[in-house]
Amino acid sequence: MKIIVVNGPNLNLLGQRDKEQYGSLTVEKIEEYLIDNFLEISFQFFQSNSEGEIIDQVQKAAGNYDGLLINPGGYAHTSVAIHDALAELKIPKIEVHLSHLAKREKFRHTMVTAAACDGYISGFKENSYLAGVYLLLKLIEK
Amino acid sequence: MKIIVVNGPNLNLLGQRDKEQYGSLTVEKIEEYLIDNFLEISFQFFQSNSEGEIIDQVQKAAGNYDGLLINPGGYAHTSVAIHDALAELKIPKIEVHLSHLAKREKFRHTMVTAAACDGYISGFKENSYLAGVYLLLKLIEK
Amino acid sequence: MKIIVVNGPNLNLLGQRDKEQYGSLTVEKIEEYLIDNFLEISFQFFQSNSEGEIIDQVQKAAGNYDGLLINPGGYAHTSVAIHDALAELKIPKIEVHLSHLAKREKFRHTMVTAAACDGYISGFKENSYLAGVYLLLKLIEK
Amino acid sequence: MKIIVVNGPNLNLLGQRDKEQYGSLTVEKIEEYLIDNFLEISFQFFQSNSEGEIIDQVQKAAGNYDGLLINPGGYAHTSVAIHDALAELKIPKIEVHLSHLAKREKFRHTMVTAAACDGYISGFKENSYLAGVYLLLKLIEK
Amino acid sequence: MKIIVVNGPNLNLLGQRDKEQYGSLTVEKIEEYLIDNFLEISFQFFQSNSEGEIIDQVQKAAGNYDGLLINPGGYAHTSVAIHDALAELKIPKIEVHLSHLAKREKFRHTMVTAAACDGYISGFKENSYLAGVYLLLKLIEK
Amino acid sequence: MKIIVVNGPNLNLLGQRDKEQYGSLTVEKIEEYLIDNFLEISFQFFQSNSEGEIIDQVQKAAGNYDGLLINPGGYAHTSVAIHDALAELKIPKIEVHLSHLAKREKFRHTMVTAAACDGYISGFKENSYLAGVYLLLKLIEK
Amino acid sequence: MKIIVVNGPNLNLLGQRDKEQYGSLTVEKIEEYLIDNFLEISFQFFQSNSEGEIIDQVQKAAGNYDGLLINPGGYAHTSVAIHDALAELKIPKIEVHLSHLAKREKFRHTMVTAAACDGYISGFKENSYLAGVYLLLKLIEK
Amino acid sequence: MKIIVVNGPNLNLLGQRDKEQYGSLTVEKIEEYLIDNFLEISFQFFQSNSEGEIIDQVQKAAGNYDGLLINPGGYAHTSVAIHDALAELKIPKIEVHLSHLAKREKFRHTMVTAAACDGYISGFKENSYLAGVYLLLKLIEK
Amino acid sequence: MKIIVVNGPNLNLLGQRDKEQYGSLTVEKIEEYLIDNFLEISFQFFQSNSEGEIIDQVQKAAGNYDGLLINPGGYAHTSVAIHDALAELKIPKIEVHLSHLAKREKFRHTMVTAAACDGYISGFKENSYLAGVYLLLKLIEK
Amino acid sequence: MKIIVVNGPNLNLLGQRDKEQYGSLTVEKIEEYLIDNFLEISFQFFQSNSEGEIIDQVQKAAGNYDGLLINPGGYAHTSVAIHDALAELKIPKIEVHLSHLAKREKFRHTMVTAAACDGYISGFKENSYLAGVYLLLKLIEK
Amino acid sequence: MKIIVVNGPNLNLLGQRDKEQYGSLTVEKIEEYLIDNFLEISFQFFQSNSEGEIIDQVQKAAGNYDGLLINPGGYAHTSVAIHDALAELKIPKIEVHLSHLAKREKFRHTMVTAAACDGYISGFKENSYLAGVYLLLKLIEK
Amino acid sequence: MKIIVVNGPNLNLLGQRDKEQYGSLTVEKIEEYLIDNFLEISFQFFQSNSEGEIIDQVQKAAGNYDGLLINPGGYAHTSVAIHDALAELKIPKIEVHLSHLAKREKFRHTMVTAAACDGYISGFKENSYLAGVYLLLKLIEK
Repeated sequence: MKIIVVNGPNLNLLGQRDKEQYGSLTVEKIEEYLIDNFLEISFQFFQSNSEGEIIDQVQKAAGNYDGLLINPGGYAHTSVAIHDALAELKIPKIEVHLSHLAKREKFRHTMVTAAACDGYISGFKENSYLAGVYLLLKLIEK
Repeated sequence: MKIIVVNGPNLNLLGQRDKEQYGSLTVEKIEEYLIDNFLEISFQFFQSNSEGEIIDQVQKAAGNYDGLLINPGGYAHTSVAIHDALAELKIPKIEVHLSHLAKREKFRHTMVTAAACDGYISGFKENSYLAGVYLLLKLIEK
Repeated sequence: MKIIVVNGPNLNLLGQRDKEQYGSLTVEKIEEYLIDNFLEISFQFFQSNSEGEIIDQVQKAAGNYDGLLINPGGYAHTSVAIHDALAELKIPKIEVHLSHLAKREKFRHTMVTAAACDGYISGFKENSYLAGVYLLLKLIEK
Repeated sequence: MKIIVVNGPNLNLLGQRDKEQYGSLTVEKIEEYLIDNFLEISFQFFQSNSEGEIIDQVQKAAGNYDGLLINPGGYAHTSVAIHDALAELKIPKIEVHLSHLAKREKFRHTMVTAAACDGYISGFKENSYLAGVYLLLKLIEK
Repeated sequence: MKIIVVNGPNLNLLGQRDKEQYGSLTVEKIEEYLIDNFLEISFQFFQSNSEGEIIDQVQKAAGNYDGLLINPGGYAHTSVAIHDALAELKIPKIEVHLSHLAKREKFRHTMVTAAACDGYISGFKENSYLAGVYLLLKLIEK
Repeated sequence: MKIIVVNGPNLNLLGQRDKEQYGSLTVEKIEEYLIDNFLEISFQFFQSNSEGEIIDQVQKAAGNYDGLLINPGGYAHTSVAIHDALAELKIPKIEVHLSHLAKREKFRHTMVTAAACDGYISGFKENSYLAGVYLLLKLIEK
Repeated sequence: MKIIVVNGPNLNLLGQRDKEQYGSLTVEKIEEYLIDNFLEISFQFFQSNSEGEIIDQVQKAAGNYDGLLINPGGYAHTSVAIHDALAELKIPKIEVHLSHLAKREKFRHTMVTAAACDGYISGFKENSYLAGVYLLLKLIEK
Repeated sequence: MKIIVVNGPNLNLLGQRDKEQYGSLTVEKIEEYLIDNFLEISFQFFQSNSEGEIIDQVQKAAGNYDGLLINPGGYAHTSVAIHDALAELKIPKIEVHLSHLAKREKFRHTMVTAAACDGYISGFKENSYLAGVYLLLKLIEK
Repeated sequence: MKIIVVNGPNLNLLGQRDKEQYGSLTVEKIEEYLIDNFLEISFQFFQSNSEGEIIDQVQKAAGNYDGLLINPGGYAHTSVAIHDALAELKIPKIEVHLSHLAKREKFRHTMVTAAACDGYISGFKENSYLAGVYLLLKLIEK
Repeated sequence: MKIIVVNGPNLNLLGQRDKEQYGSLTVEKIEEYLIDNFLEISFQFFQSNSEGEIIDQVQKAAGNYDGLLINPGGYAHTSVAIHDALAELKIPKIEVHLSHLAKREKFRHTMVTAAACDGYISGFKENSYLAGVYLLLKLIEK
Repeated sequence: MKIIVVNGPNLNLLGQRDKEQYGSLTVEKIEEYLIDNFLEISFQFFQSNSEGEIIDQVQKAAGNYDGLLINPGGYAHTSVAIHDALAELKIPKIEVHLSHLAKREKFRHTMVTAAACDGYISGFKENSYLAGVYLLLKLIEK
Repeated sequence: MKIIVVNGPNLNLLGQRDKEQYGSLTVEKIEEYLIDNFLEISFQFFQSNSEGEIIDQVQKAAGNYDGLLINPGGYAHTSVAIHDALAELKIPKIEVHLSHLAKREKFRHTMVTAAACDGYISGFKENSYLAGVYLLLKLIEK
């Protein structure tokens, strides 16, 4: 079973970012955490600050992975283009956020890309990813 | 470890409701599903169509449970009173939704009660509950 | 033929309320008026100020009645939860209002629950109920 | 007893229009249906696609009819001018709609002309007219 | 000097309409009032309930009159088409209203057609017309 | 002189709630505080988390009390139904809030129920109640 | 007959301001123009850039003048306080604007103070004042 | 092949209207231009300032033409009634505008009627018509 | 104990203003009423129609008074500048209104200055002031 | 004659995307279709999912091409930056969309980039491109 | 070279105000700071809490100074009248703010007066003034 | 002292863009202008049309520069992702704009990225950069 994890802008800075919102793990630690918890899964990790590269990667997921986990960072609230790329992708796909968006600035309450995923999870720091993979497995099994 | 699962209005009708949105399991089946998956947890299940009874129950959770899972149904989008009850409750608490709210009517995009929980999950039908408990455990462990 | 008439908050006060808006009949007089006009129908009347009890009653209508007439009072403009209960009910159902909502305060122009009924009637005082039953019969006949 | 029935734009197309929304009867069939059900009433039927002609007709109703039934079609949501003509007319007047406006596009939720009638009915296809006349009789009797 | 006075929908009913808003004069009395006060002017009076006929008339004013006075009635708040006709007309043109729009319903605060006139006057009943002609003369003189 | 004090959702938790917003007194202490300050008044205290029960209680106040003091908690911002119950009650009635609503979240700035009271007070913690009774006496005296 | 003309902020600059919007006359020239055209009237002219002084002056008009003409300048769009002062004044009162507000920035479309006058005139440069006095005479005569 | 071209209000003035927005051709020149470019098509041209007559014409197109080209002028932004007439018409239909609406006033950005056509073209002056017919042919061919 | 009472625009007119909204006492009578009820307090009364003078006075209250009572009149809904002056003042301060703002025009529902006070009271006519002082004493005592 | 065709995000997926919205041709087929229809034109085709690369390409069009055809995909509704790049480009430029935006989600009704082109076409699938080139030729000819 | 520095409401309190937002310097210290840094400039300093006096001062700047620096305080967000005074002033003029408005309350994001200046600076405490003068010099030099 | 200057989309076109808005200098000239004015500073200049590359560069500034000056061009109004990158950067950072945003289109009034800087400057063409560096020095000195 192959899953790709797509991380959007500024997620490469995890560990330095506001720990209250994002938790204290680096992105590498989160990757290890996923690998350790889901030994049966072959993970591919991708991070980019570029909207275009994220779209490229979402498109390439078709046929190459069984599921996609995406944290679009700030693009979650503005990117019609990533929304459209996700809408074309016909494998299970889940959006996750480290921070609890509903508690933050108003502009983070608009969910553009999530509407093109199968569902979404917000607020559990690194465990949002864990639960995301956990649910991807359920969707893939069907 | 003791967890209370609070289900709001119309969730007693699960199994008959639109399966595309809510899945095909009855609320009893979801309860069994949780028990089977988390044998170490002692669950208490509560359902009510009444906003006031839900508030009563949320208040009573303090001191009696290690965590709370809530699906406030339609009250999720309107109830300042449930929001305030949740805000007073100092144990881990997670909001879950069977359907994918961001894909539905505009009035389901306003999240009033979620802002008083630790995070929320939407769109995975019965597995939203499973992931909710999974994450509650993570929060309780800390 | 069995029809249930569900009256929401403050409708137990009819007769004392602003006659210009609501007419001068008490709720009992309206009930008599319906019985006298539709002798062939077996009516059940229910009134509650509680959103939860109204939902309970709407749910119970399934299988027990041929049609439902509802005046949700103030909940008509705010209750997603009653909307959802009505949406699950697969018998003819009509929303009626004594007063003419479009002529009143702005917050009474938002119709939340009506969208889950087969249609609605507003502004004819006690005759809104009469016309509601009249139309329920047409819907049941089909 | 004399009643005028004013039908607005596109209602001459009934029978061809979307049956799910408008029912399957032609406007002539609806006219017959009214005549058959209310033998004691002398009906006058008027249809026009022109806002100005509808206003002309509403103005002429004063002194010539005991009641007016109007389905302003698309003008219901935009016409301040028809609203003002109705507001000047001092006989019982009721607005009816075949389709259930509250379930349709957002722009059909704004009720401009209805606020100048005694009440309104929406969603019951040809039976909206029947109930409209039924209620006009009640208003005229007073 | 030739001036055309264009009256829109429902202005033919003046004298019967709400005197508090519109004054007690009929449209004929207002016409006489204008003629008596401005003996040097040759007036043409036109009234129609039809948006299209009003546009026709506005178009015809070019080359035939020295100034145009318009009371578009309810179309003042909605008609882009009359706005565009007025915008094409290169003679002095003034919009007048009998009632004081800023004191009435919210939907009468939007001024669509006035923006294509040289200015506008609201709230002085029949004297709005008098002042309108008085100002047209000033504009024509320039 | 008999006054009923109606407390809405979560006010039974006073003393544990955020002291910065609500003060440090329990609801029992506030009751004692009122009794001690207004020895001449016979108080009845009522608290419920249920919108329906609050409406029931507001309705029962008619004829049984000289004045009503209400803190509708979170329902203050959403309940058309409590608004309507208060509007029917023809004794002096005042809305009080412990916290200063204008300084809090945007959704607490909408005052639905207050518009059906004689006035309202916000921001003085337990003293909001004291001033509320103080003013009720003034209104009852008239 | 005594009329006070109240000019608000920046109207002392007339003659230098954008002639396209405001015309080319200075405020003194407008005053002369009024005096020359209405020899029978005793005018008092007042100009201030201060909202408070304008309110003082509006209040003092009661009992001292037969009518008031006001050009509140930029305060026309924001001043609830001037609105309230005008609302208390029980003599004929008219708001005038030199420029055509409906053609200018969006923030000049909100008319706060005009709603407390008997009517208003906009867009005719110095002739707005002339027509304003002309109409004041009509109102005073009644 | 028969195509009807429906022109709405003020399009009879082309040639005199603002050339920057609408181009310099008269409506007759545009008609010739179409005929010269599409010799194989039999054109019918219709222009009216009346919303009602436009609806009449759109209705009559059914069965009589292979395609419809419409420039609704100012009605494009307000007419639910023309929208509904177009929605009933089951032949290829395209909306064209001479001017570039997205660059003009805000009220021209709302596209009411276009949503009931197969597509729309804006901004190319007389060539909008040419391209409209060009595309109608493509749609008719299918 | 020294308290300053700041009255904003048009409050010098009390006694003449709409008694339904503001009560029948003059501002001098309200001052006497306060003095009579709170003999232990040394009052200073200030009234101005000028926003700037009110700010000056609010600033001067620091160090000279134990508490401030303010009725900003129409400035309550618009003045960021008075808000900022109040925010700088570190003594107890309460906003009072004679009329019940939540029942009046929409523009009186926006509370700009109140957010910089300790709380506010609305709707009790002269007794709003009485309760305001009553509460100031409670705040000063702490 | 040289024309560059710029395709934005997800247009490389054509042929797989929702055929109802986008038609069934691949982007290569559309390119062939253009070449076959306009043999006299030398086309350059560019596609990118990256907003930045699209801006780079739009900038490079200056001096190198006679016209530009752009389908900005999802960026059409959000990209001020592409808008600004297009605004700087002084050759004929047309925006095209395969799908009919006015019939789709609300967020696709906002046209950001189109306002910086000479016009736009929406809803004709591959023929939108054809008509776009057809119109570019007209613009270039001038 | 002569520059006038106009400070609006509450800026006389600097040094006592929230240092996080406004810095710790008094207004006198800021004046000294400017003088010390720009020895070649003759400064005039003006502060008022009154909107009217600020307008008076802005008007007087014409012909007497080479440039104007203004911090309108709270009036920056509401004063159309100061905006209009600045618009008439034909010397270089710059708006400065000590605090970073974009990080503060929503009502401080509306910039009314800034639109009538040559540019504006926000967020640098006392250095906003320094940079303001620095830029005024650049503008005056041209 | 090392400062990085980040220029966003279309700023590479300076010198060709609308001089009224942006000034007449090329980006290279602005760079020289900065170097000449601040000889003590080591500048690094970066320009990109890509949102992702700008984020990359902002991230890299940490530890490598003493201050950052950014002109995000069109991304200033839409990019949550650049906002988040700036928020993570703990060195002095200032946003500058050549044009005066408050005088331009409505969509340029929303400041997304500025809220994550220490302050911002708008409207002074090339001198916005000069003042930006001037202020950066002040911030770095602290």
